[in-house]
Amino acid sequence: MSTTPQIIRTAHIEYRVTDLERARAFYVDTIGFVVTEATPDALYLRGLEDRNHHCLILRRADSPGIGHVAFQVRGAADLDILERLYQPTARYFQRVPAGTEHGIGEALRIQDQWGFPLEFFWESAKAPWMLQRYDQYHGFDVMRLDHVSFIVSEIDPAYQWYTNTLGFGCSEMTVTSDTPPIKWGAWLHRKQTSHDLALQIGVGTPMIHHASFISGSVPSLLRGLDVLGAQGYHRRVERGPGRHGTTNAFFLYLRDPDGNRLELFTGDYLLADPDWDPIIWSLEDEQRQTFWGADAPDSWFNEAMTVTDWQTGLPLPTTGSAVQTQPTYLNSRR
Amino acid sequence: MSTTPQIIRTAHIEYRVTDLERARAFYVDTIGFVVTEATPDALYLRGLEDRNHHCLILRRADSPGIGHVAFQVRGAADLDILERLYQPTARYFQRVPAGTEHGIGEALRIQDQWGFPLEFFWESAKAPWMLQRYDQYHGFDVMRLDHVSFIVSEIDPAYQWYTNTLGFGCSEMTVTSDTPPIKWGAWLHRKQTSHDLALQIGVGTPMIHHASFISGSVPSLLRGLDVLGAQGYHRRVERGPGRHGTTNAFFLYLRDPDGNRLELFTGDYLLADPDWDPIIWSLEDEQRQTFWGADAPDSWFNEAMTVTDWQTGLPLPTTGSAVQTQPTYLNSRR
Amino acid sequence: MSTTPQIIRTAHIEYRVTDLERARAFYVDTIGFVVTEATPDALYLRGLEDRNHHCLILRRADSPGIGHVAFQVRGAADLDILERLYQPTARYFQRVPAGTEHGIGEALRIQDQWGFPLEFFWESAKAPWMLQRYDQYHGFDVMRLDHVSFIVSEIDPAYQWYTNTLGFGCSEMTVTSDTPPIKWGAWLHRKQTSHDLALQIGVGTPMIHHASFISGSVPSLLRGLDVLGAQGYHRRVERGPGRHGTTNAFFLYLRDPDGNRLELFTGDYLLADPDWDPIIWSLEDEQRQTFWGADAPDSWFNEAMTVTDWQTGLPLPTTGSAVQTQPTYLNSRR
Amino acid sequence: MSTTPQIIRTAHIEYRVTDLERARAFYVDTIGFVVTEATPDALYLRGLEDRNHHCLILRRADSPGIGHVAFQVRGAADLDILERLYQPTARYFQRVPAGTEHGIGEALRIQDQWGFPLEFFWESAKAPWMLQRYDQYHGFDVMRLDHVSFIVSEIDPAYQWYTNTLGFGCSEMTVTSDTPPIKWGAWLHRKQTSHDLALQIGVGTPMIHHASFISGSVPSLLRGLDVLGAQGYHRRVERGPGRHGTTNAFFLYLRDPDGNRLELFTGDYLLADPDWDPIIWSLEDEQRQTFWGADAPDSWFNEAMTVTDWQTGLPLPTTGSAVQTQPTYLNSRR
Repeated sequence: MSTTPQIIRTAHIEYRVTDLERARAFYVDTIGFVVTEATPDALYLRGLEDRNHHCLILRRADSPGIGHVAFQVRGAADLDILERLYQPTARYFQRVPAGTEHGIGEALRIQDQWGFPLEFFWESAKAPWMLQRYDQYHGFDVMRLDHVSFIVSEIDPAYQWYTNTLGFGCSEMTVTSDTPPIKWGAWLHRKQTSHDLALQIGVGTPMIHHASFISGSVPSLLRGLDVLGAQGYHRRVERGPGRHGTTNAFFLYLRDPDGNRLELFTGDYLLADPDWDPIIWSLEDEQRQTFWGADAPDSWFNEAMTVTDWQTGLPLPTTGSAVQTQPTYLNSRR
Repeated sequence: MSTTPQIIRTAHIEYRVTDLERARAFYVDTIGFVVTEATPDALYLRGLEDRNHHCLILRRADSPGIGHVAFQVRGAADLDILERLYQPTARYFQRVPAGTEHGIGEALRIQDQWGFPLEFFWESAKAPWMLQRYDQYHGFDVMRLDHVSFIVSEIDPAYQWYTNTLGFGCSEMTVTSDTPPIKWGAWLHRKQTSHDLALQIGVGTPMIHHASFISGSVPSLLRGLDVLGAQGYHRRVERGPGRHGTTNAFFLYLRDPDGNRLELFTGDYLLADPDWDPIIWSLEDEQRQTFWGADAPDSWFNEAMTVTDWQTGLPLPTTGSAVQTQPTYLNSRR
Repeated sequence: MSTTPQIIRTAHIEYRVTDLERARAFYVDTIGFVVTEATPDALYLRGLEDRNHHCLILRRADSPGIGHVAFQVRGAADLDILERLYQPTARYFQRVPAGTEHGIGEALRIQDQWGFPLEFFWESAKAPWMLQRYDQYHGFDVMRLDHVSFIVSEIDPAYQWYTNTLGFGCSEMTVTSDTPPIKWGAWLHRKQTSHDLALQIGVGTPMIHHASFISGSVPSLLRGLDVLGAQGYHRRVERGPGRHGTTNAFFLYLRDPDGNRLELFTGDYLLADPDWDPIIWSLEDEQRQTFWGADAPDSWFNEAMTVTDWQTGLPLPTTGSAVQTQPTYLNSRR
Repeated sequence: MSTTPQIIRTAHIEYRVTDLERARAFYVDTIGFVVTEATPDALYLRGLEDRNHHCLILRRADSPGIGHVAFQVRGAADLDILERLYQPTARYFQRVPAGTEHGIGEALRIQDQWGFPLEFFWESAKAPWMLQRYDQYHGFDVMRLDHVSFIVSEIDPAYQWYTNTLGFGCSEMTVTSDTPPIKWGAWLHRKQTSHDLALQIGVGTPMIHHASFISGSVPSLLRGLDVLGAQGYHRRVERGPGRHGTTNAFFLYLRDPDGNRLELFTGDYLLADPDWDPIIWSLEDEQRQTFWGADAPDSWFNEAMTVTDWQTGLPLPTTGSAVQTQPTYLNSRR
């Protein structure tokens, strides 16, 4: 039988927030998420294009950071395959029954070999599709979760795991000018877009740099910025708007009231062809980061989000407080 | 002393509506006007860019149509000049004190030589500027009234009156291929855009073809269409969206629940230069109507709005039920 | 072994044109395709997002219409599977070696059971990716071929073939109000968007209603219209711009100088989830066709393109001159 | 007779460039200006909406900076009025006959009391209007010159001169939190938009911070950025894109290959009403600079362009090398 799981896409993420009402005002009233379910401890949010119960959980916690990242798989058999694959290396794994997480069927919870808290599931409760409810669009017209970005101390081991073992494809890569070149970042996908998962090199790990949500269009993203400004959230804008060289997408990075980072993202490309050759960017090409040339602020390079230990529910310690690292021959933030 | 009045711009228009609640749902909740004042008999609405009390009055009436069209002038002296100018020809005129119309200072009310109910004023109560309240934008992001379109049986007399006597400039014109050419339409302006007033030839007069309101941008106009569709108003779309050849603007024509016609309009041009030569379009140039080539529906040519008699408050009879007329050599709606 | 072929997506289409230079001026200079290869008899064109040799072939011919429609599959084994599947029913099939069509590897050519000329291949010569060559964007910023629309006399047999035998998914469907409902249209996909293939019911078959190409964005599509108008092609616009209810996409239909129909299309949705329930539209819902409510012209319903016989190279006769048909209780073009 | 000149608008500006071919590649091929006339020593450029001969002159020179700024007036009489007004204070003035500057009629050249090289004229040679030549749009779709920004050591004297003596209106103002407040910036207009001239306080004067040109729309401005990036000019982007709080416009600041600064600007507002009350912004309101909150780089505050001495043709010395200054209680670049 098959030994490669059928992973569909990155499906949802859980953010830890210290003030649920403040987070609701930011994510729902301003950013434009749709509320599927609200409990005293959590908000289950989806985008206008989502049919699943949620793509973002806001969980009340003592400190910010990431609760877990979830991937949807095709069926129950894929959970068995994943369990076998992770058994030798995962720091922790547990099969949980349907409903353990609101709206989600049976799931496999993993603290992977790098410490990242992952969840794999194949069934979700359904929620009304809002794509043509234009009268309810607001903020950034958030459509769905697109991808997450993991900080790892070296790219290759994680790259091999996700491509060879879990069946991800690689759309783009950044490499050093060493001989041979060293991978500095990798954009990996299961769904047919530029990516579901980005791997970025850094000294602080396990950490997650950002989760990225699709904004309906460039005009939607700019309207969201205007709404955000009108509501006095201008200090929440960390970087952008701009065009990434890698992925070609129009982007904006925000910090939520707890400091958690999220990206609004629109306009990358369809990647349906199995014979795709990854695009290779040199770290010395300033346009890989921002096609239009603006520097990113130091915080964007030096700060990321801690992840949660499935067993203790507490943030995992990291190998460094700052995540940024780059070859000594580079002194540009570009 | 000066004998030419200082007219600033077309400032507001009054629509007759038979169901004020139904009209409010359409104009405020869907189209995106802002409510300045509501009375049992009328709604006083403004756009996001307006500082005046209103640019649109919805007046409860037994039948649809236009109540009056108002022009703002620079000062009280301009009302005196206008009174002298209209005295010989106006069918009716009356000076009314401040407050006769909510939010409007002293005014001169005219039933002009063609039957159009006009109002001239120089002072308006002020209302908060909403241009940077992006969190309250909705529908078409209506900014302000831009222009109105009058149906007249021949262009030249009205053209001479508005340009020579009232000091309007002419931005564009359509003419027949007769020798000499006959004017078929004229775009006249006081403010520095393509027009405040369009004159169109027709058999049914006095009638007003449409009033046109500025939508914030092309994306705003398309978003308004999506909102309108989501709310089931798709039968209210009469023509467009499209690009006009004349004025170069992006346009949409709607019929309100009473059948009154309004245009949403964006992206014409600045016309600040006093030495502007009018653009002359041949009636045989299909692109004058729609730069992209689509025909307009018959209703757009055959139907217009009656106007109100200042004295009786009743609609004035018109010289014909249909307004459309064109040279026999033309058989295209383009 | 697997009996379901791994079809990737609709990959290219061949249009028959009677004047290659006139077609080049239209498709390359105005619409915005990129030329990969030009021969005395054909132009091989691609979009800005394409890496394959071509997504559109313009073939010199005595009459307009469609040469063939090509689907890309994962590998050579899929051609064998398809050959077995088509053998019992195809009117004609032939394996052709690499290079028989410029830039295309070995292929399976089929005249299917309905008469449609199909080509299946798995390898294409590669061409430079133009996605970030913004200085060469022009016209509609054409990205790639998205889908084709086939006219069939009844939906169900073709629907069963493409879903059950060839493994397509169904995103949306239109049905009559009969009991039980009769399928009137179906949107089928292999790649993760709303569709690769639309099936529409009609009396004239085998015919192809249109091929649809992705325009980079809504602003790109509107800019294309302005360029088209500036070059005097306004009579080539048949329908739109508008928003479809089905697929939610922003659309425009053009007729090329030979009368062949193409659609420019942007902004449908990602369809990655295997548990997607098709959206069912009633034929009586006017918004399925145009979310904003405008009628389509008669030509859009009554005219389509003939297809070519692989063996004779001549257009196949059709069962009727007009393609349009609808339940008698419908009298609307909406 | 009238003692207030009828100034129409800021009409053109002359930039000094050290390499005319390099400047042509930047301004014409990338930014999107239209060439009206080229001589060995200068390029005369206009925008798509211009009817005048030029809105930008690129003049070959030994050093970068500004040649002069020109205002168009209504007629010859206005030149006489201006001559009388400037006589007491201007450091230099000269009436020059038609044709002294290519395409420009008789003009009054002034080195004003602050050292700025000004030109007033009332007649320009005409050039074809390109607004509907969409097939020739490229880069940022530059429409026309909108405004210039002057650095002065204190606002009030220049403010009084331009408003009381030359008849400019004031749309917006920034002030300190001193008692009474001190003006820190002023936006002054003659045409009916937010401004023709901005006054900014600074230690280095006479200097010009930037000239601003209208980009056709927000999508045009973003497309221009993509074209600029595709051509490797990303290092020419100094600030933006973003939304200004003052004027509400969408902006981008570029440095040309000589280091001269230009702004691309779109979407401020119509200012037709004579009773407009200026919008007053506190210097402590971070959103006045960027509604979305991003800091401007130091260079934007510290660098500006020298101006040319009409008599010597050489750059005038300035009172300081850096222009930036701000109240000590402000330590933010916002």
